Amino acid sequence: MTQPEITAAILIIGNEILSGRTLDTNSQTIAKALTQKGIRLKEIQTIPDDEDLIATHINALRSQYHYVFTSGGIGPTHDDKTALALANAFETSLELNQDAHQILLEYYAHPDELNEGRLKMAYLPKGAQLIPNAVSGAPGIQMDNVYVMAGVPSILKSMLDAIIPHLQGGTMIQSESISCDDIPESEMAKYLENLERQYAQVDIGSYPRLNDGIPSLNIVVRSTDINALTAASNELRGIIDHIKTLKNL
Amino acid sequence: MTQPEITAAILIIGNEILSGRTLDTNSQTIAKALTQKGIRLKEIQTIPDDEDLIATHINALRSQYHYVFTSGGIGPTHDDKTALALANAFETSLELNQDAHQILLEYYAHPDELNEGRLKMAYLPKGAQLIPNAVSGAPGIQMDNVYVMAGVPSILKSMLDAIIPHLQGGTMIQSESISCDDIPESEMAKYLENLERQYAQVDIGSYPRLNDGIPSLNIVVRSTDINALTAASNELRGIIDHIKTLKNL
Repeated sequence: MTQPEITAAILIIGNEILSGRTLDTNSQTIAKALTQKGIRLKEIQTIPDDEDLIATHINALRSQYHYVFTSGGIGPTHDDKTALALANAFETSLELNQDAHQILLEYYAHPDELNEGRLKMAYLPKGAQLIPNAVSGAPGIQMDNVYVMAGVPSILKSMLDAIIPHLQGGTMIQSESISCDDIPESEMAKYLENLERQYAQVDIGSYPRLNDGIPSLNIVVRSTDINALTAASNELRGIIDHIKTLKNL
Repeated sequence: MTQPEITAAILIIGNEILSGRTLDTNSQTIAKALTQKGIRLKEIQTIPDDEDLIATHINALRSQYHYVFTSGGIGPTHDDKTALALANAFETSLELNQDAHQILLEYYAHPDELNEGRLKMAYLPKGAQLIPNAVSGAPGIQMDNVYVMAGVPSILKSMLDAIIPHLQGGTMIQSESISCDDIPESEMAKYLENLERQYAQVDIGSYPRLNDGIPSLNIVVRSTDINALTAASNELRGIIDHIKTLKNL
């Protein structure tokens, strides 16, 4: 019954994230897709457009996790350094990839459109496999367990959709999100701790929010064991009802 | 004239980010504030609610950067592990912090309101300094160069506002964002590369977007040298006008 855990990490590449110019939404897109596949995302690292740093981080992550997903730095300009960094990480070099070249030739109707910048996107590490890009032609790059995707969110999404069916899935974590309305998180604390102690296979997360200064609380109960999840969730709902009754809510 | 670079890292703590349930916007909030202060954000790491992992990451980052900012895990529940992890990282233990206790006593009008869960938030590492929380009372924690803040975005923002005036600022990076409208990024590539070669003190980033499938391109020119920035930006605007004229745009 016990399946090994399938793990993953994300590497976000881009000065524009670190300067605060751009909000990274790609991590969440990838995280959601992995969760649905039963793959455990263990960490996200965000680093600058620096060739050596990218290569170092790729190598550290690919030896530690089953899958590594990167976002950013594979476009046509001088600040797109991920393909070269990937080649360095795998101790190989860039070459004109015939399949990628063919894709670009077909994508750009007129040969003149395939300018030097665009042609750069067909120079990939030796041995690379292509990740289809349904949005704008130029493919993503797979080397072993590393999947290199574009930074533009709609392109990343399209590449991810192509990758996901080929990944080995793990045991799904089932979850229930239970609202406590405006019961303070601090009042729930002792019940949640007891509940997690009582149900060893269940993980309980407590997520307070403030909307225009008005607090609300959601408890997320997670488990790979559906029976434990149901039992813990039912017990939690009973606790919440009891507290509300006491408060005459 | 040459000032040393002031550097920082962010540590985002929370299973809910890694599962994809929650979009992390705190990194961008912190990143923007640091950029305005001339502090260089070098990396962001996102990790689970795991006491040992949090301590290990805090120690690795605080020895490497001038400032470390963490977000998440300082609330009243069992899954809030950052205070204890911080104590472990600094090889000390938690104690009832008298100032934090006083703040909570004043914040909660009726003594009964300061329940066990809330009181937990006054147990801080020995030697901790407090970060004021104008939103919900319970303070953030400063230990040396590590600033531990809440995960709820409005609370984090309030803590950050209190911290920023006390940080040592660095040399500001000035920037200009220049629109290329729908000139393809690949056509700009060679000009941008030449421009960056020509202006050694200037960093040029190329940021394509797709809105409903319609591409647009922004070039961001950055430099600590305002003269170099102005010269490179003006030259870039000339190039863009020239390309548009050729295209009869």
